[in-house]
Amino acid sequence: MAVMKVHGNPLSTATQRVLACLYEKDVEFQFVNVDMAAGEHKSENFLSHNPFGQVPAFEEGDLKLFESRAITQYIAHEYSDKGTQLLLPGSNKTMAVLHLWKEVESHQFDPPSAKLIYELRFKRFVGMTPDSAVVDEHEAKLAKVLDVYEARLAQSKYLAGDHFTLADLHHLPNVEFFKRSSVKKLFESRPHVAAWVDDITARPSWIKVLDLQKQKV
Amino acid sequence: MAVMKVHGNPLSTATQRVLACLYEKDVEFQFVNVDMAAGEHKSENFLSHNPFGQVPAFEEGDLKLFESRAITQYIAHEYSDKGTQLLLPGSNKTMAVLHLWKEVESHQFDPPSAKLIYELRFKRFVGMTPDSAVVDEHEAKLAKVLDVYEARLAQSKYLAGDHFTLADLHHLPNVEFFKRSSVKKLFESRPHVAAWVDDITARPSWIKVLDLQKQKV
Repeated sequence: MAVMKVHGNPLSTATQRVLACLYEKDVEFQFVNVDMAAGEHKSENFLSHNPFGQVPAFEEGDLKLFESRAITQYIAHEYSDKGTQLLLPGSNKTMAVLHLWKEVESHQFDPPSAKLIYELRFKRFVGMTPDSAVVDEHEAKLAKVLDVYEARLAQSKYLAGDHFTLADLHHLPNVEFFKRSSVKKLFESRPHVAAWVDDITARPSWIKVLDLQKQKV
Repeated sequence: MAVMKVHGNPLSTATQRVLACLYEKDVEFQFVNVDMAAGEHKSENFLSHNPFGQVPAFEEGDLKLFESRAITQYIAHEYSDKGTQLLLPGSNKTMAVLHLWKEVESHQFDPPSAKLIYELRFKRFVGMTPDSAVVDEHEAKLAKVLDVYEARLAQSKYLAGDHFTLADLHHLPNVEFFKRSSVKKLFESRPHVAAWVDDITARPSWIKVLDLQKQKV
């Protein structure tokens, strides 16, 4: 089998999502660092991997993928017998519940999260001041999403059921950022959400992702 | 087998996405109209179907789903032997390519589309004036996405390959709106994108969705 290659940057949340998945599956892969400060993600070579010019990109032999959640989906299916079982195989109905919570992450959790990370991380990184009205607006949106998560996580330990799956894993990079920011109050004030955050961010796979990040900083 | 029920509104793009899928699969279902003007989607009853208070919601016996793309995914898998084959079964690799283009719709195409539809449809509907700077910004983002689509559709008739799949279907509601708006120039000026739009919006399943919409208006 061809070796898997991930082209990405350890500081990118989307790259971290894929790395967490690979570490959970305990499969070998090669990491190709993309120097985003030098604009390497907009180079002709990288655009041949991802025409949108965003990290990460993935390849395994002839297969070329991008979009972090498409990459994790492929790895979870292709290597379903290795490492942690990240799916809910069994029936279309159990898989549908997993898929539902993956869609919730994509369409409910991620949009306000991405706005907050742009304001609180990216803007500070480049020396701009976060817009407090935008922060307040998206904190309010995220709070409503977390109310739904609190009710859900009172019923099951993880979002899709009693097992850690891709639906939880996809949240890790954003949740880790929020843990270290003023947004953490939204998570800490909801006991089931807080316990879930503590649980998923303590996973050995995620600690490995954070270690890789430290090496590169 | 329990009857499928879709709780939604024919004017909602997310509802239309699910209806198009059901018509493609040629399966029986019951449509339960949710009167959004009366705020029915925020009622206690509806929130028991979708805690986010958004249409559509779906049920089949004990299975309750929401998020339009999770619903279409379930229907496409559960009824894979009925109507149009909307997946690319065969291998994890072919499914990965389908999944990639579904993710592109979710994370590249939909965000600027949703902003444009909010400005050009929702604001006009409630008597507000679209913000031309916001429209320009998101038209520019959508144009870049469509440049990638143009290159892709020069290689294959549909996004995931030579067959119409969920990856194409998920675009239908937004594409239909754009066809009738000033944004249509972005689609018409790209020949492969234009041919794709003509093809997918002419499908009998989609005509049925539009007919249902007319009956309700």
